Amino acid sequence: MKIGILGAGSMGAALGKLWAALGHEVCFGVRQPVGEKTAKRLSALGSSVRTGSLEAAAQFGDAVLIAVPWEATEKVVRSLAGHLVGKVLIDCTNPISPDLSGLIIGHSTSAAEEIARWAPQANVVKCFNTVGAGGLHDARYGDHSAAVFVCGDDEAANKMVTHLAEGIGFEVIDAGPLAEARYIEPLALLWIHLAMRGKYGSKIAVKLLRR
Amino acid sequence: MKIGILGAGSMGAALGKLWAALGHEVCFGVRQPVGEKTAKRLSALGSSVRTGSLEAAAQFGDAVLIAVPWEATEKVVRSLAGHLVGKVLIDCTNPISPDLSGLIIGHSTSAAEEIARWAPQANVVKCFNTVGAGGLHDARYGDHSAAVFVCGDDEAANKMVTHLAEGIGFEVIDAGPLAEARYIEPLALLWIHLAMRGKYGSKIAVKLLRR
Repeated sequence: MKIGILGAGSMGAALGKLWAALGHEVCFGVRQPVGEKTAKRLSALGSSVRTGSLEAAAQFGDAVLIAVPWEATEKVVRSLAGHLVGKVLIDCTNPISPDLSGLIIGHSTSAAEEIARWAPQANVVKCFNTVGAGGLHDARYGDHSAAVFVCGDDEAANKMVTHLAEGIGFEVIDAGPLAEARYIEPLALLWIHLAMRGKYGSKIAVKLLRR
Repeated sequence: MKIGILGAGSMGAALGKLWAALGHEVCFGVRQPVGEKTAKRLSALGSSVRTGSLEAAAQFGDAVLIAVPWEATEKVVRSLAGHLVGKVLIDCTNPISPDLSGLIIGHSTSAAEEIARWAPQANVVKCFNTVGAGGLHDARYGDHSAAVFVCGDDEAANKMVTHLAEGIGFEVIDAGPLAEARYIEPLALLWIHLAMRGKYGSKIAVKLLRR
C-alpha cells in the first residue's frame, strides 16, 4: 500500500517505520525547509522511506496519516483538502491542551463533577459506570479481572470505594481526581455502543494491560 | 460497612446484592410509595437487605451509591445533600441521552469530526490515538494484543486502516461511525493521565475482554 504520513513526530515516525518494514511504500511529508531534528529523525529511518513536502506526501498516499501537532492540524488539513479527495485520512490526533490537562474540544464537565456541585459536602467517587449491570456478578474473564476506574478528590473515600470494588472481584485502576470522570464517562458510551451495535455484545469489559 | 443505595434499578440491585453477600449492611432507598416492579426486585434480594426512603438510605450509609436514572439524579442529590455531608457518595451514573446515542453533558464534538469538516471529501478514520508512540513497535502484552479502536463513516476506508493496524500487531476494535471519536479521544486522555501520574507508567494499553 502507498502511505503518506503528514509530520515526522514520534507517532508518525513510529508508524511509518513499522509499515515500511512490512513492505508498504511510505512517504513522509514535512514542512519545508526541514528542521534539523526532523532531518535527523528521518535519516534514522533509512532509505526504505521517501520524504517530501506535505503536499507530496498527501498526493502520494492511498492512505494518509495526519500526525502533526494538534495546533497545526486545522491549517494542514484545510490546505491539503484538495489533495485528499477520496483518500483514506487516518486521524491519530488528540486535541490536547499544551499542559496535557485536558481535551480542548468538546469536553467541559462530567456527571460526577455536577453531582459534587449538587452535594458539595459529600465525597463523590466515580466508579462502576463502565461495567454493565449484567456483568457485575462476574468480574472474571478467564485469567483476567475486568477493570473499573476509581476517581475522586478524597483519598480516604477513594480507598473505601476501591475496597468495595475489589471485594466483588474487579481490578481497580486509580484514575486520580474527580475531574477525570470526564474521560471515564465517555468510556461508558463506547462500551454501550460496542455492546449495542451487535458485533461485540454485552459480555465485554475493559482491561488495562501492563508490562 | 454500612452502604446506602439510592435506587433499586439494575445497577443498584446488582451491587447491593453482591455487597450484602460479602457481609456489608445494605439499605436500599427508593421513592415512596414503592412501585410494583421495584417491590418485586427488592423482595427477590431477600432478608439480607433493608429498604426505606431515599432519605433513610442516605442517612444509613457510610458510603452511599447514587444509582437512580440520570434524569432524576440532580433532584435526588440536591434534596439529600444535607444527609450526605462528609459521606462517601459513589457515582456510577452516566449522563446518557434517552436513545443512548450520546452523553448529554460536556461532549459535543471531536477532533476527528472537525478534521472531516476541514477535508470534506476525504474518508477520515480515527485510529492509533489511544496508544503511545513508544509502544507502537510492540503491541503484545504477554499472551494479549493491545487494542486500537477504529471508527469512520466509510466501510472500505475502515477496512484499510484495520489492515494497517492488524499488520503491526494490534487487535482492532470496530467502534462504528466517526462520531464515536468523541468517546475514543477521551480514552487517550485517560491513558495519558494514568501514564503521567506516575503509578502506571507509559507501558500500559487497553484491551477489550470478551466471553
